[in-house]
Amino acid sequence: MRDNKTLQKKIINKKAVVGVIGLGYVGLPLAILFKKKGFKVIGFDNDKKKIRLLNQGISYIERINQRDVKSLKNYCFSTFEKISDCDILTICVPTPLTKSQTPNLSYIKETIRLAKKYLKKNQIIILESTSYPGTTEEEIVKKLNKKFDIGKNFFVGFSSERINPGVNENKIQNIPKVVSGYSKKCLKLIKIFYEKSFKKVVPSQKIEIAEFSKLLENIYRAVNISFFNEMKIVSDNMGLDIFEIIKIAKTKPYGFRPFNPGPGFGGHCIPIDPHYLFWKSKKLGISPKFIKLAGELNSYVIQFLIKKILKVLKKNSKKNKNNKILILGLAYKKNMDDMRESASLKLIDHLKKRGFLNIFYHDPHIKNFQIKKNLGAKRLNIINSSNLKEFDLVILMTDHDKFPYKLIYKNSKNIIDCRGKYKVDEKVERA
Amino acid sequence: MRDNKTLQKKIINKKAVVGVIGLGYVGLPLAILFKKKGFKVIGFDNDKKKIRLLNQGISYIERINQRDVKSLKNYCFSTFEKISDCDILTICVPTPLTKSQTPNLSYIKETIRLAKKYLKKNQIIILESTSYPGTTEEEIVKKLNKKFDIGKNFFVGFSSERINPGVNENKIQNIPKVVSGYSKKCLKLIKIFYEKSFKKVVPSQKIEIAEFSKLLENIYRAVNISFFNEMKIVSDNMGLDIFEIIKIAKTKPYGFRPFNPGPGFGGHCIPIDPHYLFWKSKKLGISPKFIKLAGELNSYVIQFLIKKILKVLKKNSKKNKNNKILILGLAYKKNMDDMRESASLKLIDHLKKRGFLNIFYHDPHIKNFQIKKNLGAKRLNIINSSNLKEFDLVILMTDHDKFPYKLIYKNSKNIIDCRGKYKVDEKVERA
Repeated sequence: MRDNKTLQKKIINKKAVVGVIGLGYVGLPLAILFKKKGFKVIGFDNDKKKIRLLNQGISYIERINQRDVKSLKNYCFSTFEKISDCDILTICVPTPLTKSQTPNLSYIKETIRLAKKYLKKNQIIILESTSYPGTTEEEIVKKLNKKFDIGKNFFVGFSSERINPGVNENKIQNIPKVVSGYSKKCLKLIKIFYEKSFKKVVPSQKIEIAEFSKLLENIYRAVNISFFNEMKIVSDNMGLDIFEIIKIAKTKPYGFRPFNPGPGFGGHCIPIDPHYLFWKSKKLGISPKFIKLAGELNSYVIQFLIKKILKVLKKNSKKNKNNKILILGLAYKKNMDDMRESASLKLIDHLKKRGFLNIFYHDPHIKNFQIKKNLGAKRLNIINSSNLKEFDLVILMTDHDKFPYKLIYKNSKNIIDCRGKYKVDEKVERA
Repeated sequence: MRDNKTLQKKIINKKAVVGVIGLGYVGLPLAILFKKKGFKVIGFDNDKKKIRLLNQGISYIERINQRDVKSLKNYCFSTFEKISDCDILTICVPTPLTKSQTPNLSYIKETIRLAKKYLKKNQIIILESTSYPGTTEEEIVKKLNKKFDIGKNFFVGFSSERINPGVNENKIQNIPKVVSGYSKKCLKLIKIFYEKSFKKVVPSQKIEIAEFSKLLENIYRAVNISFFNEMKIVSDNMGLDIFEIIKIAKTKPYGFRPFNPGPGFGGHCIPIDPHYLFWKSKKLGISPKFIKLAGELNSYVIQFLIKKILKVLKKNSKKNKNNKILILGLAYKKNMDDMRESASLKLIDHLKKRGFLNIFYHDPHIKNFQIKKNLGAKRLNIINSSNLKEFDLVILMTDHDKFPYKLIYKNSKNIIDCRGKYKVDEKVERA
């Protein structure tokens, strides 16, 4: 028997079956958490290769360990039949951009389209994918409200993911979890469910408030990273080191929060989420200027870096295209194997277009199979005192802890440091 | 005898005489602190009225108490002769803007011009006024380097003030104090001096780094307040309350810092300091876009408020100019008597220009004598259940704790709440 009282009891007694749709950076840690907390968990992903690995108990994300993945073994599927066995479904599929930088909701749409025939009364669907305010209602409620009486015999909500890649994948239960629901009953059930796994659950009275809050969190970061990068360009023009300035400013104990300048933001959230709110706002006739500026600055900061590169190479007698350049770090963030939207990839593209022929990269976190054939830069598996000397310029793009910073400094002719790891001197330029 | 070893000893033994030039929001608390810590303190200010009050032991700043001011009694002067008695001079004069929004350094220039003839070897001058990088060198070092061998027999530095008006005037010693000096000797002496009064002193290796860091602290605030105000406008267009959104977003324990939306920033720092860096950058050929945008948004947010006002008054049958409007709060910040650059003053100006004839204000912190004659709004000394009912619209501009919020809600016909004190309902609009 399946009614909403039974459902509530099943959640409370952890007898509910939880389906996690999309087993990537967000879904996989979540599935593991629910499993750890005692729920029966079924994983879904349309990537058959991932499903095969997971069913063998093999992790394909560096920061998620084998042992945890093993708990999902044999419960992962690339098709949706088992959705009818689930009481709760969380949707953790990607929400990327189209080529014209507008929201691409095709993964959510396709999930609902394919799942629909397996859905039954008294199930709960919770969207965890980040999107603009209104998505949960438009893409889930409206698509299912002919089949169900949503809020009464079927329950829908949104809960934002707060994964901090490279930091908290294995302790997401410690981060307060925002939940929202289409009706009061939805919110109640969803809240009870997440409280079984998360230390603190934060109910939002409206789904759209929760959706917006997630975008606000990330747009705040995009705006500030870009703002600090602009301050880097300004201070550089004054002959001042932005990292020194920030070191002083951050001793202010209130009202200030430092951001790290760098070669531009990357990853799946910061470069993408702002476009979601921008697009939605445009539809309403407003054009959020801070979002636009943050994006523009993020492109500009690569131009600033290229100017620095040309300046440093000018000292050299070689023609630009013959200079040997080494890029340290392809990942967008330290100690990670994630290259999505990485500034290093953009830099390589720019350098290629400018005719540079000898671009190399080194990144101990990135495996060879992750690299596209036409990257435009050659792989250097190891760096040492002899091969570093061969480069006319070494560019520190990602501040991985694994890099041998002293060795790099000692053996490089010229360094452009985008991360503030070195002091500026005759060998080191900041960018 | 006066040499730099004697000077250092005098500082260490608190026998040094400290002159504070400029006894306003920054200088007065600083003078009081040095006095409390055991230094002999002489105050200077060109405002004879202030000097007369201080010599009578009367405070003219609400948040600074009588007892503390009494410690400076009879040691305050409106002329500079006593400068020759001082070992250390801190300059805390205003750095406002000219009409064309460029730095107005006339107070610093005039201070140095008038003080020059009283300056002697082995004194220390420290600039505490906020200004663009290079000011200390251009306006102090270069103006005195014919008379002294700066860094050797005369000492110059910059130390940023971190007064948080309405919050920390009486405990500035708890806020880390940034110091810098023209030479190593300067930095050493200045550091020793401030360590006698402040719990933590943060040395900056370059004066310009310290100057820039202060601007960065405040520009960060300007950018973020404007960014949150833009998000307010965006969410309002979506029918969502920004204060609800922020309440949810700020449960994220890392990477996010909430700012309070409002009718636009005010005070002596946030609206002014960004222009200092902007101007200096322009001189170097760059135009910092985030600074520009923050300023533009701050003007736009008043337009947004006016649209809301017109929308609310539309419900009313009266012609606009006859509507009775009450503005709650003239101060730019809660619980303060400071109206400098306040959004309320700008709003009154806009409403006047639009022909509104019945504008009133109420602010328990602002005394009548502080008000310019041609303000354009009539004073309401008290608000109560009967006079509130007479207004067609009440606009909450400043969230003073003294306001009787329940009474205001109960007796007002319409409220526009710029501070998130009320929930939005049929009576309350957000702006």
